[in-house]
Amino acid sequence: MEKRELLFDGNEKQVFATDDPELVIFRFKDVITAYNNVKRARVARKGIVSNAVSSLLFEYLRDKGVHTHFVSKLSEREQLCHKICIIPIELIVRNRFAGEEALRLGIEDGFTPPRTVYNLRYNNTALGNPLINDSEAEALGIASEEDLKIIYATGARINSLLSELFRKAGIELIDFKLEFGRLKGGAVVVSDEISPDTCRLWDQSTGERLDKDRFRFDLGSVVASYQIVYDKLIKIQE
Amino acid sequence: MEKRELLFDGNEKQVFATDDPELVIFRFKDVITAYNNVKRARVARKGIVSNAVSSLLFEYLRDKGVHTHFVSKLSEREQLCHKICIIPIELIVRNRFAGEEALRLGIEDGFTPPRTVYNLRYNNTALGNPLINDSEAEALGIASEEDLKIIYATGARINSLLSELFRKAGIELIDFKLEFGRLKGGAVVVSDEISPDTCRLWDQSTGERLDKDRFRFDLGSVVASYQIVYDKLIKIQE
Repeated sequence: MEKRELLFDGNEKQVFATDDPELVIFRFKDVITAYNNVKRARVARKGIVSNAVSSLLFEYLRDKGVHTHFVSKLSEREQLCHKICIIPIELIVRNRFAGEEALRLGIEDGFTPPRTVYNLRYNNTALGNPLINDSEAEALGIASEEDLKIIYATGARINSLLSELFRKAGIELIDFKLEFGRLKGGAVVVSDEISPDTCRLWDQSTGERLDKDRFRFDLGSVVASYQIVYDKLIKIQE
Repeated sequence: MEKRELLFDGNEKQVFATDDPELVIFRFKDVITAYNNVKRARVARKGIVSNAVSSLLFEYLRDKGVHTHFVSKLSEREQLCHKICIIPIELIVRNRFAGEEALRLGIEDGFTPPRTVYNLRYNNTALGNPLINDSEAEALGIASEEDLKIIYATGARINSLLSELFRKAGIELIDFKLEFGRLKGGAVVVSDEISPDTCRLWDQSTGERLDKDRFRFDLGSVVASYQIVYDKLIKIQE
């Protein structure tokens, strides 16, 4: 596998071409961002830990039959991934209401609804990633009814799998964000990453935040907390 | 029918009790508000024209078998209505994207999607009437899955009926908002009003705005435009 030109230089990740037109290399930077990139910082080793957690979770999901863009972990900061055509949608899966969403709807932070709540966001930075619903996503040609069925079903399946995995590791999966893309053949797969950057993860015993909220709310120990998540996940695999 | 105490004093309407515990009187004020009540004005005769249009449309819908809270027009400013328990949800039905929603999603004002778009808002002034989706409405106990089925079906039916009616009157129904309530027996019905305050109505030939956008954008002739809508609707009934 030969690493070739930089295809995309994002805030937190870079994507490189390879000698195989259907494969790309994801490289995780030591950058963390929040509030639609308004808050940004460079944090040593953050890319290494995010890559470690995301690779571990994508491997776990693959073993359970979930289709993702992930192929293999290449190095500390790099993953080999299938090249995808981005579907500009984010699915947010909520087991509890927290953060911005709890505030927006006037709900107590941490409230557990009687069933899982799903949100869609239109992945468009210039517009501030606005909330959309199914009829808007279809009307704008962002995702078809069939795509949305797959997206919701995948979100529910991953929620069930990861909630169980994190529970074993002593962590509660509060909510998480998924991104999606289309493989060359048209199949819809999970893309981007799944890590403490894209999940809310609370220590089951202490309620301690082990995710990006440490950065959002200046709680400190950002990477140390991401590392705790990784160590706990590794421990239950041994 | 005896008019009794004031039950609710809203921005644009008042609700009075009657000697029948299941009936109330709606009284339309000469007040117009926009942007979640940030912009407000007193406009002479506005309540009279809104009551006239809303009564006409509710009568039309009743004749077509749609269940609403409306009983009869009592006077220039007053309607007799069934007392309802408010479902704090607004359904917005869009035949074209316009206004705030077009801006929010980066869509050209007036864009016609391939099919009707529906939005839900949580009717909560303190929160700024935030957008919600079905899973949030159900999770918060605002509306059940069964309620939402009725709400969407009612929205689609009213859209079909009113689009046709307005078309005959030379007006295009761009979008509109519905509110809902529960009658004593539990049945979900359309409540509030349907008028140029709650619809976007464009003159079919000239594209002229005949609705609350005249107030939002300081286009002038607010009540004169509402009156044009009424006159056009009356004309096709003759």
